[in-house]
Amino acid sequence: MEFEANVEVQLKEGIADPQGSTIENATPKLGFNGIENVRVGKSIRFTITAEDEATAKETIQELCEKFLTNPVIENAIIHLQGAE
Amino acid sequence: MEFEANVEVQLKEGIADPQGSTIENATPKLGFNGIENVRVGKSIRFTITAEDEATAKETIQELCEKFLTNPVIENAIIHLQGAE
Repeated sequence: MEFEANVEVQLKEGIADPQGSTIENATPKLGFNGIENVRVGKSIRFTITAEDEATAKETIQELCEKFLTNPVIENAIIHLQGAE
Repeated sequence: MEFEANVEVQLKEGIADPQGSTIENATPKLGFNGIENVRVGKSIRFTITAEDEATAKETIQELCEKFLTNPVIENAIIHLQGAE
């Protein structure tokens, strides 16, 4: 079976995020108010072929730990959707 | 009202994504099979204070066009969740 995966990688709470701070500081100057706590992460989309959803999720979790994230400073949120 | 926003910025289809290709080529060498069509984008999370959900969405759309994306090569997907 083929699944659509979306892995969102965000810096953990407490880790400085200069890119997010820059966006947060720029928004009022551009006329946008009320925007706070900006955090910039990565969004990795791909298709994965696996026997079932549990296997796909397990593979992605392993992939995240080994390769897609730095587990010391980053968290991953895995979204998985069944395709054909 | 305060809303939790998550803006996912992805390169448009047909735009070369070297970062995605690198991940895709590396996965089989690391022992992961069946991973295809890897696309790497950005995920920007923030809180926004607005009168209602429609206003919040409109502000974010404007923010995306002006500031968070390059509309020539990138698409934005906006996820919005109500908080207190």
